[in-house]
Amino acid sequence: MEMSKNSEMTKPLDALNQARNKSVLAELKNGLQFVGTLKAFDIHLNIVFDNAQEVVEGEIKRNLGRVLIRGDMILFLSPQNK
Amino acid sequence: MEMSKNSEMTKPLDALNQARNKSVLAELKNGLQFVGTLKAFDIHLNIVFDNAQEVVEGEIKRNLGRVLIRGDMILFLSPQNK
Amino acid sequence: MEMSKNSEMTKPLDALNQARNKSVLAELKNGLQFVGTLKAFDIHLNIVFDNAQEVVEGEIKRNLGRVLIRGDMILFLSPQNK
Amino acid sequence: MEMSKNSEMTKPLDALNQARNKSVLAELKNGLQFVGTLKAFDIHLNIVFDNAQEVVEGEIKRNLGRVLIRGDMILFLSPQNK
Amino acid sequence: MEMSKNSEMTKPLDALNQARNKSVLAELKNGLQFVGTLKAFDIHLNIVFDNAQEVVEGEIKRNLGRVLIRGDMILFLSPQNK
Amino acid sequence: MEMSKNSEMTKPLDALNQARNKSVLAELKNGLQFVGTLKAFDIHLNIVFDNAQEVVEGEIKRNLGRVLIRGDMILFLSPQNK
Amino acid sequence: MEMSKNSEMTKPLDALNQARNKSVLAELKNGLQFVGTLKAFDIHLNIVFDNAQEVVEGEIKRNLGRVLIRGDMILFLSPQNK
Repeated sequence: MEMSKNSEMTKPLDALNQARNKSVLAELKNGLQFVGTLKAFDIHLNIVFDNAQEVVEGEIKRNLGRVLIRGDMILFLSPQNK
Repeated sequence: MEMSKNSEMTKPLDALNQARNKSVLAELKNGLQFVGTLKAFDIHLNIVFDNAQEVVEGEIKRNLGRVLIRGDMILFLSPQNK
Repeated sequence: MEMSKNSEMTKPLDALNQARNKSVLAELKNGLQFVGTLKAFDIHLNIVFDNAQEVVEGEIKRNLGRVLIRGDMILFLSPQNK
Repeated sequence: MEMSKNSEMTKPLDALNQARNKSVLAELKNGLQFVGTLKAFDIHLNIVFDNAQEVVEGEIKRNLGRVLIRGDMILFLSPQNK
Repeated sequence: MEMSKNSEMTKPLDALNQARNKSVLAELKNGLQFVGTLKAFDIHLNIVFDNAQEVVEGEIKRNLGRVLIRGDMILFLSPQNK
Repeated sequence: MEMSKNSEMTKPLDALNQARNKSVLAELKNGLQFVGTLKAFDIHLNIVFDNAQEVVEGEIKRNLGRVLIRGDMILFLSPQNK
Repeated sequence: MEMSKNSEMTKPLDALNQARNKSVLAELKNGLQFVGTLKAFDIHLNIVFDNAQEVVEGEIKRNLGRVLIRGDMILFLSPQNK
């Protein structure tokens, strides 16, 4: 049973569990931005996006399909409520 | 039972426990500043903010909603008593 | 039995299992891009490509044959459906 | 019972135990300097200061109240005998 | 019994096992290139070459004899089929 | 019983054990140099100096008293036989 | 019993065991070069040299006596057969 967005979180990964199969923004340490559908993640913050797009200043730069982004490059992850 | 601000701390994470659901400033190693309501954290200092805002020289630059910030990017965290 | 592309993923490495023996793009933290046939990987994201090619702006720069790329240099891995 | 300053140390964290609730200078890898009252620390050298001040060339730049500084940013910690 | 080059790999280190006592190119994160006979390696990708040569743009710059290269400096390793 | 300087070493920390309570030079990865009396150390090479001095080109720049230097900033440690 | 230089190696540290009490070149990630008599090492590649010399373009720059070099600064180690 998936927890609702307002259910209690105790650990950061709970936030990712709630965002699974939803659109998530990943901003990387080198400034790159990717948006995609969150399919999988682990404790290292390695993530898999489907339908991933690299975004530069709000414009789509590349369509990448499925990507596995290495967790140690993540600056932040933000679920997109759109 | 939540510990009061003046209760004894022994470990750094005790300070975050006391700041849960309160406004916290996160200053990152790359100079970015985020303010938000602290919802979750772990031993790596991965944190989840709700109502997160990126702040540049005291001005709000972006409203980000919920963000999970990777702990290894944190320079310091400071509860905001405001 | 190999999982189909549409089978459920729970962990990021499941995405690599599905891409084994297929063409994968590896974009590195230093900007280099390699394409090759994914032969092996581990939890550090160390990967082995056969028929690896270094690619610069869509052009093949070097044919490298087999390469083992160190996982901590990976920015992202993307299976190529081509 | 708190050990006196001259009691025997065997491990580096013993020096922090002796400095608890006292004024400590934290010089960071990026050149920033913070002074505050040491309230908590752990084996990663994550530290919590109360009444923390950012100091630039001997001048107070910012009053930060309570801060949790991530241990991997610490260059050195020095108890202030003032 | 050594596995042949075409035998099945499951882990990246299997590729190094197959290259033991053969010529291997090591390209490092700082751009240096070394070629040598692979004598030993471990899970960190620390490697020992005998008859190691530093190579710059295809030219031998230094003959180093035996070298132990620290694994965290490796960008990629590529067996040389020559 | 303290080992003499000429006793057998098997591990690097044995060298620090022999230098305890003696003057040691710490050269850091960022080029800073500190000299002080080695009071404590651990497996991460975190060290505590008493009477620590920052030294620039052979001149004392700062008297710091007691400092705990984070081990991951150490380039090398060298006992001073003076 | 010390293994001869031509005995079989299986792990990189075997190469260091064979070089104990012999002259070894340490080239560091920041370009510095040290030559000394290898006295001790561990799995992190922390090493202790006696009679260590910093070398710049083949010239001795500094005589350092005993040094403990932090393993994570090592680019490569090369036994000197001289």
